[in-house]
Order: sequence, then structure tokens, then C-alpha cells
Amino acid sequence: MNYRMILYIMGQILKGVGLFMLLPIIVGLIYGEEHVVSSFGIPFAILMVISFALTVRKPKNNSIFSMEGFVSVAASWIMMSVVGAVPFIISGEIPNFSDAIFETVSGFTTTGATILSDVESMSKSCLFWRAFTHWIGGMGILMFVLAIMSSNDSRTMHMMRAECAGPKAGKLVSKSKFSARILYMIYISMTLLEIIMLLFGGMPLYDAIIHACSSAGTGGFSIWGDSIAHYNSLYIEMVIAVFVILFGVNFNLYYYLLIKKFPLVFRNEEARTYFGIIITATAVITMNTMKLFGSFGEALRHSFFMVASTITSAGFATTDTSQFPIFSQTLLILLMFVGSCAGSTGGGMKVSRILILFKTGVKELKYIVNPRAVATVKMDGKPVENDVVRGVSSYFILFMLILCASLLLITLDNYSIEESASAVITCMNNIGFGVGRFSTSGNLGGLNAFSKFVLSFDMLIGRLEIYPLIMLFATKKH
Amino acid sequence: MNYRMILYIMGQILKGVGLFMLLPIIVGLIYGEEHVVSSFGIPFAILMVISFALTVRKPKNNSIFSMEGFVSVAASWIMMSVVGAVPFIISGEIPNFSDAIFETVSGFTTTGATILSDVESMSKSCLFWRAFTHWIGGMGILMFVLAIMSSNDSRTMHMMRAECAGPKAGKLVSKSKFSARILYMIYISMTLLEIIMLLFGGMPLYDAIIHACSSAGTGGFSIWGDSIAHYNSLYIEMVIAVFVILFGVNFNLYYYLLIKKFPLVFRNEEARTYFGIIITATAVITMNTMKLFGSFGEALRHSFFMVASTITSAGFATTDTSQFPIFSQTLLILLMFVGSCAGSTGGGMKVSRILILFKTGVKELKYIVNPRAVATVKMDGKPVENDVVRGVSSYFILFMLILCASLLLITLDNYSIEESASAVITCMNNIGFGVGRFSTSGNLGGLNAFSKFVLSFDMLIGRLEIYPLIMLFATKKH
Repeated sequence: MNYRMILYIMGQILKGVGLFMLLPIIVGLIYGEEHVVSSFGIPFAILMVISFALTVRKPKNNSIFSMEGFVSVAASWIMMSVVGAVPFIISGEIPNFSDAIFETVSGFTTTGATILSDVESMSKSCLFWRAFTHWIGGMGILMFVLAIMSSNDSRTMHMMRAECAGPKAGKLVSKSKFSARILYMIYISMTLLEIIMLLFGGMPLYDAIIHACSSAGTGGFSIWGDSIAHYNSLYIEMVIAVFVILFGVNFNLYYYLLIKKFPLVFRNEEARTYFGIIITATAVITMNTMKLFGSFGEALRHSFFMVASTITSAGFATTDTSQFPIFSQTLLILLMFVGSCAGSTGGGMKVSRILILFKTGVKELKYIVNPRAVATVKMDGKPVENDVVRGVSSYFILFMLILCASLLLITLDNYSIEESASAVITCMNNIGFGVGRFSTSGNLGGLNAFSKFVLSFDMLIGRLEIYPLIMLFATKKH
Repeated sequence: MNYRMILYIMGQILKGVGLFMLLPIIVGLIYGEEHVVSSFGIPFAILMVISFALTVRKPKNNSIFSMEGFVSVAASWIMMSVVGAVPFIISGEIPNFSDAIFETVSGFTTTGATILSDVESMSKSCLFWRAFTHWIGGMGILMFVLAIMSSNDSRTMHMMRAECAGPKAGKLVSKSKFSARILYMIYISMTLLEIIMLLFGGMPLYDAIIHACSSAGTGGFSIWGDSIAHYNSLYIEMVIAVFVILFGVNFNLYYYLLIKKFPLVFRNEEARTYFGIIITATAVITMNTMKLFGSFGEALRHSFFMVASTITSAGFATTDTSQFPIFSQTLLILLMFVGSCAGSTGGGMKVSRILILFKTGVKELKYIVNPRAVATVKMDGKPVENDVVRGVSSYFILFMLILCASLLLITLDNYSIEESASAVITCMNNIGFGVGRFSTSGNLGGLNAFSKFVLSFDMLIGRLEIYPLIMLFATKKH
């Protein structure tokens, strides 16, 4: 393993985070919040010093493989979560260390679970930073560094895997040296478009930027205690719902649209399943909540929003889901596991993994009924390599094992079984709300520091899809 | 597919069930319960007529493969659940059809979940039949038929797979034509031994027979509302705990003991893990419940009993688990998934499957860290064939998919999420108690008929390990 190169990449990543910290400083200065000079200035300086030290000399041996990418991403994400929490502590707005770490991890991993009971009392700069961590974490900070590093390095793709979600890194854009740059261009354009659309709905510019950043990363942090319900505007709700759904689609498909390869888009099985699940779940929950909302229209409005918000892992809310019938609450929890498409900014296990798992199950049944028939798992009409099928099964097994272990640790906090389970599920899948005291109307602030640490780990496990973190700890032995 | 042969096997199985019905008739006559003449006499007659019709002529083509075994077992289990419920209906002790079916499926599948709120008001003959269905279902009725059919057929093993639990049918006894007979001899001997041990503890003969049958099948039906707690006897609790643990061990190991192949027993990885989990879980739950019980001794007593009762899927109780701290309740739920050893009478996913799943996860991590290293999954020091590893992963996937689908259907009944989930988990793993209103102090009687039907299906899915039932429905298309 090339440790020098890992440190160099980490340096680049932390420099990126540092530069991003200039934005909340600008926001603070605009709104006359003097604390930004210390609360953001200090971590900015720390990040600059560290990154300078790590990148002052480029390593002679610059060979990198996916291993180096995985390890540097995992280490960087932990480090940036710690440094990213400093503004909350210095400003005194989240004085407790474990709370600040939890909130920052929740931001970068685009989970959006909060420990705050009074979001609205925070300063504009901190609220901006909170939502902006979603934007950074959504597409990934390594991706950002690769995008600006103007490197012609063909091994870039190798490394993108570490932050890119799904059973295999999208191959399409991969041939291009500029893939990270193209993805970021699409990401920025869509975010800008959402800001404009929200402004049309009469949302103030500051609010629009916050909610666009939060949607883009499918994170879910808002500036209001009652989230999107605050605006009580059907237009705003629909804009946000549609955009989180769009951010939950594989970004490669947008690239295909740009280069006019339309059939590749419309034939994409994962996206079709994703939209199919959204439509079906919305229809079912609408029927189930009709009595609660009193009319078909209201039920459809909230059901569509909550399905979009849940499956994409955004975690925004327009209503208190703890009032939903148990069936709808359970369906939303199952949607958390499904998640969005691979190669999107969304969380969950990813639709393609669920599809492959489902097909693996069906294949086994066919095999049991007729052992001589050779059944294969197909996606987009093509057979999926055995390695990928096996990888998806193993991912599922590891995911459930980590989920069970985390659940046991969390239950020591003596919340109810369903509350504890929902906390682990919502964090591992990067959604943001659970059930009971952790529902859309509650927060996770009541948990003890140990539970918050476990859940922070789970959020990172979910966002980086297990392997980078495991490698970080496994490689220490080598 | 040889349909004539399937019907012939079904006939034999139903004849077996019919003959077993003579026992509750004898019990009823001894206790002067006249209703047995009609309540058990009628289903006995039905079974005799059906089985006579099906077996009057032996099919000329008597070729059978595992397929025929699977399908006839699935069809027989459904049929015997329906006919086995008749005594409860005729006697008026469980007048409702869906309740009677649920109770009978719960009996045959050795689940032990009950819809009764007042067990103690039942007649002696019905209580005997209820517990005896556990005994029949524990080792399996097809196995019984194979044992008495004095057949020299070497294809017997082929068929035993259908009722035998675990990732692959135990191969050891397989070479013997008398394997079913040997297993049943061990089963009967151990049951008799438990009856004697319980008699030593001062338990009346009737009670001893009931509880021994119930333990042997790791079912959990008792004749008291408060289950084993009724006797308030440490000796009786320990006898039952130890016996359910023994019935949860792979019966092949007892055969090895008989033929003095001791190293094969002591090196058995599944059994060692099984005992390891029991000891660890008991220690952890003892510590966690010490405050509740006030003393180490009492905590150890109840923890050991409940761990034994849960992991073996017996589902007896000496205490109300809904009073346990959330951590202990959650751990017990996770133990339900683990279950007992393959080739035992216990339920759950089986320790060997969990072991293979765990090792598959570890193997994947090794592969991710170093793709060039060839990692294999080993059991008992030998590599596990890829087909078995793949089969276990697929079984896990299918199990979880069925669990999620069942959960959604059950939540329409509007019990809490954790109660609904615990009902599905306890039924699919054949345990018998869940949490909340379904805990050891409650019952499942409040569920609606649809939920009871879903849970009955889940109990059969769990006991027959998915495939026979699927084949029964899948083969109709061929």
C-alpha cells in the first residue's frame, strides 16, 4: 500500500473541505454574524495547515489503486466530520462534542438525522454549513477533488469507486478522463435549477439555496422545525419532491441524455423499477392514509412527498409520519432499505442491489424446482457477472449483520425496540427520520453519547457502503 | 413429475396422522371425555377413508425424486393441518375455523404460538392432541412414515430432505436404509427419558407426557396459562431447558455417539457454536436482568431458561419477557433467527446457516481487501461447496423477502410495528412468543382471520424451509 499517496490524497480532500468553509464565512459576513471569524476561521486554518503539510510535496511513487482510494476516503470522511463539527462547538450552537460530531456526520453522509430540538435558533451561517455538508457529501468530496485536480490520470475511475454508490461503479462515463468533472457539472446545474424553481415559488433566496443543497445531496436538513411543512405550499413541495427523485437517479443517465443516447436511458431497468416503486408506494400509501387526511387530494400530496423523501433518503417532511397507519409507516421503513439508484446522491441499499437480490431469490427457486435448468440473473437484458451477484448477496449479509450488532448496542439506551431499530435503519440507509420519538416530529437528541457514536459509524457505513471503513481498520494490520 | 406416487405418499402420510389420532381418543376415554368419540372419531374416519383411497393400489411407476418428496410433504402438511383442526371445532373448544387452523399449524410446525386466552379450560384430550402435534411435527410425519414403511428403498434419503431442516440433509446416517427408523428411535427414547425425569420432579404423569412431547418437538404448548412458571420448580425448569437444548442438536450427533464416533461429535462446529451462543447469551442476559430479578441466582435461572427456550424455538416461559430490558428482548429476537442446529427438531434459520452467512461476509471482506487472495468458506475444517454457500445466501434473501411481505400484510391489522414484526419473526422461526401483546404473557388471538392465515403460511414456510411450499405452487404450472 502506498501510504504517502494516501496521505497526499487526504491532503487534497481536506483542502477541498477547507475551501468549502469559505462559503459559510461569506454567508456569516453578509448577515453580520461576527462569530464566523472564529467559528469557521479556526477550522479553515486547521484544514489549510494540515492539507498544506500533506500535499507540499507530491509523492514520487504516485501509483494508486482502488485500495488507496478506499482508505484515503474513509480516513478523510472521519477527519472532515471532526473538523466540520468545530464551527458548531466554537459558536456554542451545538456545545456538546458528540452532538456536534453526530450532526456533522449526519450532514456529510446526507442522512439528515438531527439531535437539535430547536433548529430555528441557529445562526444563518451554521444553518448554511449544515445544509451545505449535504451538498458536499452527496456527490462526494473525493469526486470534487478529482474534478478540480485537472488530472489526466486514467486511474481516476479506480478511485471514484470508493465514494460512488451501488453494486459496481458506473462504467459509462468511466472511459472519459473528465468523468468526475462532468458529474459535478450536472450536479451543479441541477442544484442551480432547483434554486431558481424554488425562487419562482416565492421562497427567499437564502431558504432556496439551503433547501436546494439539502435536496441535491438527498440529505434532509431544513431550517425549520417542521421542515417543508413550514411553507405550506403545494408548489414548493412538488418542486422538492421532484428534485429529490431526480437526484436519486443514476447520474450516468443524465450524461446519456446529454450525449443523446436516449434508448440507454429509457431501457434502464434500475430507473424503471425506481419509478415503478415510487408510483406503487404512493398509490398504496394514499389509499391507506385517505381517512387520516380526509381527502384523496391531501392524502396523495403527502403520500407522494413522503415516498419521494424516504426512498431517495432525503428525509424532508410535510407531515408527521407517526400519525400514519402502521401499514404506511412499515412500508416507508422498507422503502428506506430499497433506497435510490446506484450512482446517485441517494442512500439505502440501492434499487439495483434490491433487484439483483430479488432475482437471485427467484433464480434459486427455479434451481430448486429444476436443478438442471441453468438460470442466470439478468439486468438490462444482459447476464450479471457471478462476481457481482455474489458481491450483492455478501453486501446484504454484511449490511444485516452490522444492522443487528448496532441495534443491540443501541438498545442499551432503553428506547423501545421499534424506535431503536428505526434509528439504526434510518442512519444506515442515510434517511433521517424513524418512528416514535425519532419520527419526523421528533429528533435523536435524547440518545446517549455512546448511541450517537454507534449511529455516526452506521451513517458512514451506509454512505461509503461498508468497505472503505472496514479497509481502513483492516489494513492497519498489514 | 410422478403424480400417482405423490398421491400415494400423501396417502401414507395421512394414514400416519390418522393413526396418531387414536392416542387422544384413548386419553379422552381414560378421563371420561365423551366428546372424543365425535371430535376425534370423525377426523380419524376421514383420514382413514382418504388414505385408503390414495394407497389402495401401489403405483406401478414408483420412481421418486426429491421433487415428489417436497410436493407431497407440502400438500400433506396443509391437509393434516386442516383435518387436525377438526377436533378443536367439533368439541367446541376452538369454535372459530381460522383459530383452529392457526392452532393446529402452530402445533405441527412446532411453533407453539397460541390464539387461546384460557388454555386451562380445555379438555384433557384436546390439550394432549395440541401438544402431540408438536411431537409429530418435530421429527416430521414423512419421516415417521418412512420409518414404519419397512422399505428397503435407497431413495428414502432423497425424500427425507423435504422435512429435514438445515442447509443440506445430514449425510451421515444417509447411507443406511434405516436412517428414518434410527432417528425415530432416538427421538422416542429421549422423549421417554424426559417423561421419567419430569416424573422424578413430582410432575403428574399427564403433565409430564404433555411437556415432554412439547419439548421434544421444541414446540412450546403447555397446559397452563403461565407455561412452565406454573410449577415454580427449579428442577422442572432445568430438566425442560436441558432437554429442549438437547432436542435442538443435530440428531446425527446422537447416532455418532451410539456408534462411538466421539471425535465427530466433539469437533462439530455447528454444535460448538450453538452451545457457545447459549452460554454467551445467558451470561449477557443474566447481567442485563439482574436488577429486574433482584439477585444473580434468579436472573441466571430465568435467563438460562428463556435463552434455551428461544434459541431452540421451544417458546416455553418461566417469566414475562415483556418486563425484560429492551436489550435482552432484542437479543432474544435475534436468537430466534439463529435457531437451533440443522437436523434437529428446532426452528429458526439454523446455526449452520448463520455460521455460513457470517463466514461468507468475512470472506467478502477478505476479498475486498485483497482480491487476489482466494478465500473459501470452511465448516468443520473442510471447504463448503460453492452450491451450499450460494444456497444459504439465497435462502437468507428469500427468508427476508417473505418476512417483509408478511410484515406488510400483518400491519394492515394495525398492531404496533414491533408487535407485528415480532409476530412474523416468531412464526417464521417457529418460536411462539413475540413482544408487547404477543409476549409470553399474551397471545395472538386478537389478530384478524387474514393475519392468522398469513402467519399460518409463515409457520409452514419456516418449518418446511420455504422450498416445499413454493414447489407445491410452482409445479402447478408445469
